[in-house]
Amino acid sequence: MRPLILITNDDGVSAKGLRVLVESVKDLADLVVMSTDTNASGKSHAITVHQPLRVQTISAEEGVEIYACNGTPVDCVKLAESFFCGRKPNLVLSGINHGSNASINVIYSGTMGAVIEASLSGYPAVGFSLLNHSADADFSACIPFVRMIVKDVLKNGLPHNVSLNVNIPNLVHEDIKGLKVCREAKAHWADGYEKRIDPNGHEYWWLMGNFVCNDKGEDTDIWALDNGFVSVVPITPYFTSLDYVQEMKNRFKLEAE
Amino acid sequence: MRPLILITNDDGVSAKGLRVLVESVKDLADLVVMSTDTNASGKSHAITVHQPLRVQTISAEEGVEIYACNGTPVDCVKLAESFFCGRKPNLVLSGINHGSNASINVIYSGTMGAVIEASLSGYPAVGFSLLNHSADADFSACIPFVRMIVKDVLKNGLPHNVSLNVNIPNLVHEDIKGLKVCREAKAHWADGYEKRIDPNGHEYWWLMGNFVCNDKGEDTDIWALDNGFVSVVPITPYFTSLDYVQEMKNRFKLEAE
Repeated sequence: MRPLILITNDDGVSAKGLRVLVESVKDLADLVVMSTDTNASGKSHAITVHQPLRVQTISAEEGVEIYACNGTPVDCVKLAESFFCGRKPNLVLSGINHGSNASINVIYSGTMGAVIEASLSGYPAVGFSLLNHSADADFSACIPFVRMIVKDVLKNGLPHNVSLNVNIPNLVHEDIKGLKVCREAKAHWADGYEKRIDPNGHEYWWLMGNFVCNDKGEDTDIWALDNGFVSVVPITPYFTSLDYVQEMKNRFKLEAE
Repeated sequence: MRPLILITNDDGVSAKGLRVLVESVKDLADLVVMSTDTNASGKSHAITVHQPLRVQTISAEEGVEIYACNGTPVDCVKLAESFFCGRKPNLVLSGINHGSNASINVIYSGTMGAVIEASLSGYPAVGFSLLNHSADADFSACIPFVRMIVKDVLKNGLPHNVSLNVNIPNLVHEDIKGLKVCREAKAHWADGYEKRIDPNGHEYWWLMGNFVCNDKGEDTDIWALDNGFVSVVPITPYFTSLDYVQEMKNRFKLEAE
């Protein structure tokens, strides 16, 4: 039996990046695609708890089933593995995202939320993102890297609860220097908002992003991407800062009582 | 000048847990409350990028301003610090959540999304959750712990980018044994869905949670809560698994070319 790959994304079922990902790997495995029915960028690890989920069948071609769901990317992974895959996926992919998920973007990303959810459920999972936001971005340089990583992970798996965040610079293939395994650069968005007044005289606000990265380490994903490499960051879904457990123990003495 | 505390939550501006938090700390600082206008449980670290944000003023009492926003908890923190606080908050609080945010719940939680966002912006931040989902839960046992931690963090701050995830067992005060600083238990939700058919004959699915925790460590938050302690987990917003950077480097040889 051919392996099964579950694919999702956060740009919606019509996104070019999703179609390129499907075309790039459909000779390697049977595919079940469960995408969001609209753009779900910025949905992070959100789940839908107060509304029911609906699913449309987009195409039921043999070996490439495509569905669209009204939930988040994390919902897509959960519902697909429960009801639509038929068997356990050998791999979960997300993307190819239109725009960077490097550095702190990973925490806001619906693309990577889906990947992390899949790894929590015990599946090897990889998210792919191209550093180009346009709807008609040229993904052709991504394809050899996608295929290399997919073949590797199908063959070798990934450590338990470890997934990969792969970002690809917006360059032609011959200008990409190769893959670089790295850590995420420590950064944040110092966002502002643009305040506007609607025709009824009421205020509203639009998010205006301002990415701030003071982490200049040559072992970071931002450095790799700035220098022409595809960045590969192994990630885990756990937030505990073990470094500070003891410091906090010393502070909160109540526990010793 | 009194310190300023920014407060948010994910259960919405009418939630009892939010009101208890405000009452518990309003003698310690000026408060700006920016809450979600509806229940935003499960919103994780989601941000609103394709819709504008709207804000209602709920109350403008001197020293306790209360607003409600149509965005996510993370949006609430970002917009409040940009437009509504007037000065930099000395502390950001979120909660008191109706229900546990211990263990892997932290990754789905809007309450904790807001806390992590605040810590990314450089503010000391603490999330509080009570292990009781009811709308009319009894939060009285929480108050001494909330006040103790808030006073401590107002005085001593927190390390850069470290925030606290505080969960409180659903017990009367005299049965709580104290605080325990711990790590999050490694667990996941093996969710299923209940499929139903609507009156028009169309399928829909409801999320059905099933929490699976095989991590029995006595240093975990789940152990602490099961044994009558308030759990305090120091958390960071970074996902990189440094343990696996070298292993992945050995696998993806392309970077050596």
